[in-house]
Amino acid sequence: MRPNIYKFGELITDVTTHPMTKRTIEGHAQIFDAAKKPEYKDILTTVSNLTGETISRYLSIVQSPEDMIANVRMKRLMFNLTGTCTGGRCVGFNTINAMWATTFDIDRESSTSYHERLKAWLVQSQKQDITLAGALTDPKGDRSKPPSQQCDPDLSLHIVEKTKEGIVVRGAKIMICGVVASNEIFVMPGSGYKQEDKDYAISFVIPRDIEHLTVVEARRPSDTREQEDGFDAPVDIGGITQSYLLFEDVFIPNDRVFMCGEYAHSLKAVANFVAMYRAAIGGCVAGQGDVMIGAAALMARANGLSEKVFREKLTQMTVNNETTFGMGVAAGVLGTRHPSGVWIPNTLLANVNKVHVATLPYETKRLAQDIAGGIAETGCVPSCRDINDPRYGNLLKKYLTANCSGETRAKIARLIEWLTIGSGVPGCMHGGGSPDGAKLVINATTDIAHDIELAKRLANIKEDIQVEQKKK
Amino acid sequence: MRPNIYKFGELITDVTTHPMTKRTIEGHAQIFDAAKKPEYKDILTTVSNLTGETISRYLSIVQSPEDMIANVRMKRLMFNLTGTCTGGRCVGFNTINAMWATTFDIDRESSTSYHERLKAWLVQSQKQDITLAGALTDPKGDRSKPPSQQCDPDLSLHIVEKTKEGIVVRGAKIMICGVVASNEIFVMPGSGYKQEDKDYAISFVIPRDIEHLTVVEARRPSDTREQEDGFDAPVDIGGITQSYLLFEDVFIPNDRVFMCGEYAHSLKAVANFVAMYRAAIGGCVAGQGDVMIGAAALMARANGLSEKVFREKLTQMTVNNETTFGMGVAAGVLGTRHPSGVWIPNTLLANVNKVHVATLPYETKRLAQDIAGGIAETGCVPSCRDINDPRYGNLLKKYLTANCSGETRAKIARLIEWLTIGSGVPGCMHGGGSPDGAKLVINATTDIAHDIELAKRLANIKEDIQVEQKKK
Amino acid sequence: MRPNIYKFGELITDVTTHPMTKRTIEGHAQIFDAAKKPEYKDILTTVSNLTGETISRYLSIVQSPEDMIANVRMKRLMFNLTGTCTGGRCVGFNTINAMWATTFDIDRESSTSYHERLKAWLVQSQKQDITLAGALTDPKGDRSKPPSQQCDPDLSLHIVEKTKEGIVVRGAKIMICGVVASNEIFVMPGSGYKQEDKDYAISFVIPRDIEHLTVVEARRPSDTREQEDGFDAPVDIGGITQSYLLFEDVFIPNDRVFMCGEYAHSLKAVANFVAMYRAAIGGCVAGQGDVMIGAAALMARANGLSEKVFREKLTQMTVNNETTFGMGVAAGVLGTRHPSGVWIPNTLLANVNKVHVATLPYETKRLAQDIAGGIAETGCVPSCRDINDPRYGNLLKKYLTANCSGETRAKIARLIEWLTIGSGVPGCMHGGGSPDGAKLVINATTDIAHDIELAKRLANIKEDIQVEQKKK
Amino acid sequence: MRPNIYKFGELITDVTTHPMTKRTIEGHAQIFDAAKKPEYKDILTTVSNLTGETISRYLSIVQSPEDMIANVRMKRLMFNLTGTCTGGRCVGFNTINAMWATTFDIDRESSTSYHERLKAWLVQSQKQDITLAGALTDPKGDRSKPPSQQCDPDLSLHIVEKTKEGIVVRGAKIMICGVVASNEIFVMPGSGYKQEDKDYAISFVIPRDIEHLTVVEARRPSDTREQEDGFDAPVDIGGITQSYLLFEDVFIPNDRVFMCGEYAHSLKAVANFVAMYRAAIGGCVAGQGDVMIGAAALMARANGLSEKVFREKLTQMTVNNETTFGMGVAAGVLGTRHPSGVWIPNTLLANVNKVHVATLPYETKRLAQDIAGGIAETGCVPSCRDINDPRYGNLLKKYLTANCSGETRAKIARLIEWLTIGSGVPGCMHGGGSPDGAKLVINATTDIAHDIELAKRLANIKEDIQVEQKKK
Repeated sequence: MRPNIYKFGELITDVTTHPMTKRTIEGHAQIFDAAKKPEYKDILTTVSNLTGETISRYLSIVQSPEDMIANVRMKRLMFNLTGTCTGGRCVGFNTINAMWATTFDIDRESSTSYHERLKAWLVQSQKQDITLAGALTDPKGDRSKPPSQQCDPDLSLHIVEKTKEGIVVRGAKIMICGVVASNEIFVMPGSGYKQEDKDYAISFVIPRDIEHLTVVEARRPSDTREQEDGFDAPVDIGGITQSYLLFEDVFIPNDRVFMCGEYAHSLKAVANFVAMYRAAIGGCVAGQGDVMIGAAALMARANGLSEKVFREKLTQMTVNNETTFGMGVAAGVLGTRHPSGVWIPNTLLANVNKVHVATLPYETKRLAQDIAGGIAETGCVPSCRDINDPRYGNLLKKYLTANCSGETRAKIARLIEWLTIGSGVPGCMHGGGSPDGAKLVINATTDIAHDIELAKRLANIKEDIQVEQKKK
Repeated sequence: MRPNIYKFGELITDVTTHPMTKRTIEGHAQIFDAAKKPEYKDILTTVSNLTGETISRYLSIVQSPEDMIANVRMKRLMFNLTGTCTGGRCVGFNTINAMWATTFDIDRESSTSYHERLKAWLVQSQKQDITLAGALTDPKGDRSKPPSQQCDPDLSLHIVEKTKEGIVVRGAKIMICGVVASNEIFVMPGSGYKQEDKDYAISFVIPRDIEHLTVVEARRPSDTREQEDGFDAPVDIGGITQSYLLFEDVFIPNDRVFMCGEYAHSLKAVANFVAMYRAAIGGCVAGQGDVMIGAAALMARANGLSEKVFREKLTQMTVNNETTFGMGVAAGVLGTRHPSGVWIPNTLLANVNKVHVATLPYETKRLAQDIAGGIAETGCVPSCRDINDPRYGNLLKKYLTANCSGETRAKIARLIEWLTIGSGVPGCMHGGGSPDGAKLVINATTDIAHDIELAKRLANIKEDIQVEQKKK
Repeated sequence: MRPNIYKFGELITDVTTHPMTKRTIEGHAQIFDAAKKPEYKDILTTVSNLTGETISRYLSIVQSPEDMIANVRMKRLMFNLTGTCTGGRCVGFNTINAMWATTFDIDRESSTSYHERLKAWLVQSQKQDITLAGALTDPKGDRSKPPSQQCDPDLSLHIVEKTKEGIVVRGAKIMICGVVASNEIFVMPGSGYKQEDKDYAISFVIPRDIEHLTVVEARRPSDTREQEDGFDAPVDIGGITQSYLLFEDVFIPNDRVFMCGEYAHSLKAVANFVAMYRAAIGGCVAGQGDVMIGAAALMARANGLSEKVFREKLTQMTVNNETTFGMGVAAGVLGTRHPSGVWIPNTLLANVNKVHVATLPYETKRLAQDIAGGIAETGCVPSCRDINDPRYGNLLKKYLTANCSGETRAKIARLIEWLTIGSGVPGCMHGGGSPDGAKLVINATTDIAHDIELAKRLANIKEDIQVEQKKK
Repeated sequence: MRPNIYKFGELITDVTTHPMTKRTIEGHAQIFDAAKKPEYKDILTTVSNLTGETISRYLSIVQSPEDMIANVRMKRLMFNLTGTCTGGRCVGFNTINAMWATTFDIDRESSTSYHERLKAWLVQSQKQDITLAGALTDPKGDRSKPPSQQCDPDLSLHIVEKTKEGIVVRGAKIMICGVVASNEIFVMPGSGYKQEDKDYAISFVIPRDIEHLTVVEARRPSDTREQEDGFDAPVDIGGITQSYLLFEDVFIPNDRVFMCGEYAHSLKAVANFVAMYRAAIGGCVAGQGDVMIGAAALMARANGLSEKVFREKLTQMTVNNETTFGMGVAAGVLGTRHPSGVWIPNTLLANVNKVHVATLPYETKRLAQDIAGGIAETGCVPSCRDINDPRYGNLLKKYLTANCSGETRAKIARLIEWLTIGSGVPGCMHGGGSPDGAKLVINATTDIAHDIELAKRLANIKEDIQVEQKKK
């Protein structure tokens, strides 16, 4: 592919070997390896509803509660195997499904043929088994104003030209996971667009190296360790990248465009995405917690203490894990089937889970640090290089020794640092939207009037009680 | 039925009219009424796997994830309709299912025919559509000792005589919900019995008015209000009773005995019960929260304030409700089918839910009191009698008036008192076992060694780290 | 005194012997007894700044951090001794101090002599060692409107006539603690009154049995148990009453009037009250928690379990107790001296403590119920009368026996019920104002602009960033 | 000073200019600057009880509640000014005070003259106004065994030789804050040593560059950014270092030795330290929270949103801040005077505060990230170098622009990253000992037997209830 990814001012020519991207590639590559193992096959693959072929689940249409349960399990599994996020596939997976429903809806209303375009592209993509990133977040500018009222019209991605062959778009998508590991990128619109924002209501798919697209990688905590030798970046088999995608008048041919001005559908498109994403992310967060339990218990042992000493804390960590996992399953199971065939999880439960995802992992991390002690809290250990220094490295190793070698103990400390305050920490709180956004949905979805009727019936209250709206 | 129920030293001759029992009857009666309504029918009834007839779900065998979801919904619905517990049916429902599996297991090992007995009884019970209470909790005495080592052998229910026709049992079952509304009572053993406790490993079913059984009702907070006129006991269509069942050498004929000394199965029997109960109770607690949301929002309106003022708090209440509900669904869905055909929910998730059930409703109650203000916090309103006093009642009404009549406002305050600190509060924390018990199960079910392996693999740690067991 | 107190439609002729009031009298009487004990003397008494005599601290002017610490300790002590609220003294204590400052302020601005009046009354009251209740809360009606805009002008207490000799007031004060034990009642205005509400800006003191004042007692959870024999109302030496005071044109002579129309001072008067009250209530809540720790640990032992089994929970209860206690001390110590000589606690810390007071005790109660088990959660034990029934009482005692007699175990269960879901529960969440009110104060007191400057300085940011106000 | 500090294998020759240490120097230097400002002078300086001269508070003996309040305020102030920890002074301050009491106690028992030695050294140090680090934590090895039973005797610092002139010590002290900014280091023993560990019971003070002492710096999250240009390490005026001190037979002359084998005093020495440290750290954590409130509110504005949108969250952050601050004040005020003149804070409250310090800041960080959005959660912004790249930097700036310039917005994001998941995060949870250690102290300090007596008195229970100890 054409090199178009930069970090620290450097153009990365080979993402598979460059230290700043290779862990992300490795993490995503594990998906392919795991898909071949008998114990994981059913989670990571499924049968295409288009071709009947066995395909990666990440390129499938979610059609049933069982598919959603598999989605939640898949996220948990991949976090277990990579220790971090494989967002370069799971976001793309969500965009396909969200737009599967929305293209269907648009086509039913208009003379468009977005759904067929999407289907054609998907058949091809399943065949090639591509890695597909998904891009939602626009820069947005001033949050109190819609795209069309910003000082700069480019602050959300929009059409600058329409031709018979396609559209030309300008703007950016930011904080996009796993782009470096992807073959293609699926772009979704922002939500809630009105008539005046209609040029912003766009969805399409592009090759990652398309002309006029520049990718700049965001920093991660402790990211330069990935350029060092040794174990200070403790995990080689997983890693996060988050990209800023700069679209300088990128041309998209019509057959890859799935929304083009149908602003009234942008809210629903994002709602579809969000319901699925916020359900499934509970599995992801549970997988994260599994590894934190393991790492914390391992450090307890390394310190000479049985994990039984920390039973109460480990139990709480499990409660947290199983809560986001279980709520993901429940949201998935209690969904509804869209006429297009996609199974859309339960909105209320998915958004409740988002609230948990924005809080419980913080407690889990705190508990991991609590169990592991001062050495792991902020990774308070000399560097790998110092530990191997010919002058004083032996002393460091000697003093790091406890119920295991000093080097092993340093590695465990680094793992916990990486998981709780290092580059392994995924941006779950705002990934897929903010918890405040979730609370708005919860509030809107709760039928308080119905609950009031329940209360009135119980206490046998007949009087109608209304609060008059204040005039503004 | 033979009157054998006492409260305050009084023998209750007619439970349907006596003020101390009639609300419980009324609550349970609502089940029958609701089962006829089209909107509730599918929740409250199902098809018998024994006869193919439409039966009450409370007398059915749970055979699938869908059955478990319906169970969770049913609990939520009944709390919505009664404002409190209808434990006189749901516990019995659980005992049938737990012993369905256990009788099957015992019979496979031995020459017993418990399963057939149970089936025969169940066919008959479905036909008669009986109300069935369930009884688990023994008095237990000193918690640090098993039944056979207590000073008094009767502190758990046990066999004192076996005859060809049946068994004679002595002891007690305590804190049993809804006995006054029941036709029969299904008795389960305690758990974890050993060889020396084998006379305690018993399960059977009895008519509520069987000879030599005396029932004494426990007190409830503010229970004497139920004997008063007026709205200080604000709910007429639901109520709790909790009984102490005193067995003074009660004879049980063989065809109603489902376990008789098979101590090794007592742990599993209770585990079956617990998995189902702790999953489904999440629905119950959610139903409780629905009513608290309604009551709190209603009081906000009564005070002249829109519920929007309390959006953050109401959202948190919804998060709590949907968490116990969702976890109940997830535990149900991720279960496994027992060879006997019963669907047993997921043990880990069910017990995680128990932990939530023991904490979240307390927060929900606090939030309800927070929204409702000082008048509702401890029901700080004069009595209904005072409000209607000819001398000063008008003044009280005048001063209770806000954005509704004074009397309505007092009723709402009483409802919130009843729900949060009055006789409507169900004993969820320990019902179906303690949260500490749930934590033990969670801890035992979590595979920490597996999590440690995940952590070691990620950080590429090969060293084996074990903590040596301390010698005692 | 003239009988003017009613409950359940009955005029109570002797508050000291009537079952519905005697526990409150007994609780307040303990103050006098304890004040004579050497170990409590320094907490409960102090030297009058007016006369130099040793007086009850409840009638003193708080003049120093040490006085505030003693105030916090006094509240904790009295909860320890009575198991509940002695609000009939501590609220009155606060009103004296709040109005000490406010009368001083008003007099400095105007030609009034409220401060001298207050002083004269206080000297006399200290001499007579009166018990003084304090009354703040008005019925208020529709919370979205000020008193002068309510449908009914009486919904807050107000002047209906001024004469040369005094004022005549009409309206009510509601939910007033300990009135039945009091000699006099000190009335404070509501807060934030404007010009048009000036007839509501009043403060005065009255004898409890003044002409045209009618007192109606609010109900408490399980309050009728106080009319029964036996231990179902487990505490004889403490109890709560909460009164509705109905003022039907009550005349107050001038020398007992301390504010009369100075609406601009009503906010500050209440702020003074609130700062002191919300600081000191932390001691009260800690005292409550001490007893809950004791009761829960006692039940653990009664169940045959060492309290060590519950170490984590008991530690959390202690953390909660010491937090409200410590924050009360800190708010007291970091106060400022008002020109009148009163020491006013720190507003921010006092209100932060109010937030804790509205949340932590709920967790403490939950933990007490958790430790104590199902028997105590909702007081799930037959009545004292049943336990002593000649027919089956012996059986109940037998089955309640564990590591102590059955009767003792029932008593402990009743104590925990009383403390956590019975008539011992004080209305702390809204007593002295709501937690939402406290949060408004916290928000107003926090200097976010200063914090922003700290942040800008650290990151060396020079750009000025302002958000323009939305036009309405 | 002799260069003896290493990081990344490099010997740092000038700590004041080296990028890996200069921020720490700068932070500590701010203390000297601030001490000269009128608004901070009273907090940062005091009068020596030894010489009557005005000295740095960091070198003073804490003699009163007021001194402790100033200590708490000082910590809050310094966090406000540096955005992070200045542990190179505050730990040293604590060690002086802890050993002031302990040397006094030892001397009273024995013929030693430690107290005079300490006094002499302190007079001199106050004169020179030295910066003094404090060192407690030993490597410890296997936590289940005391120092004398470890495989390697050096795993805690100990005497290897005693001469007439002094002692020779070997071992290490690890995770020591601010050593790079210090002139001297005050060493304390571990706690709870027994007879067989007496060679470990040592306390002394050394120049930072003493012969045979090697210092190796631990890594910090994102620490290599400090070696870069630009604002990715956003704070120049504060920074943390944490050292591993390797003692290879270091000789300490007698006049600098303050404990030498008096193992029975090691527990008390550490208890003294802990009481003061855990009280005062509440100020530190509050200062941290102040900056997080400011940074989060600033980002809200930068995003175009008024901070009022986040009122509930900001209020909770303030509650957290004022809780640790207030509890620190309360622990300080409710202390006791040691015969040596040192004021020792309240042990129970100090340890309760430690529990808050180990939990509340995590919530505060989460809330800061919640308010600030995805850009700040993990610092998801391209590097400063990329933002200034001549090819695409302008595009990044354009797309980062919101209600302020793109560069300013990136800086705010970096500040929040630094504070919540970057190198500004101090190791509060385990600094000064673990929260589990604090809980042990809380549990040991709580008088449960007294609370049980309170409960028994209230419910009029006479029966004595004891649980027999299990035999082991």
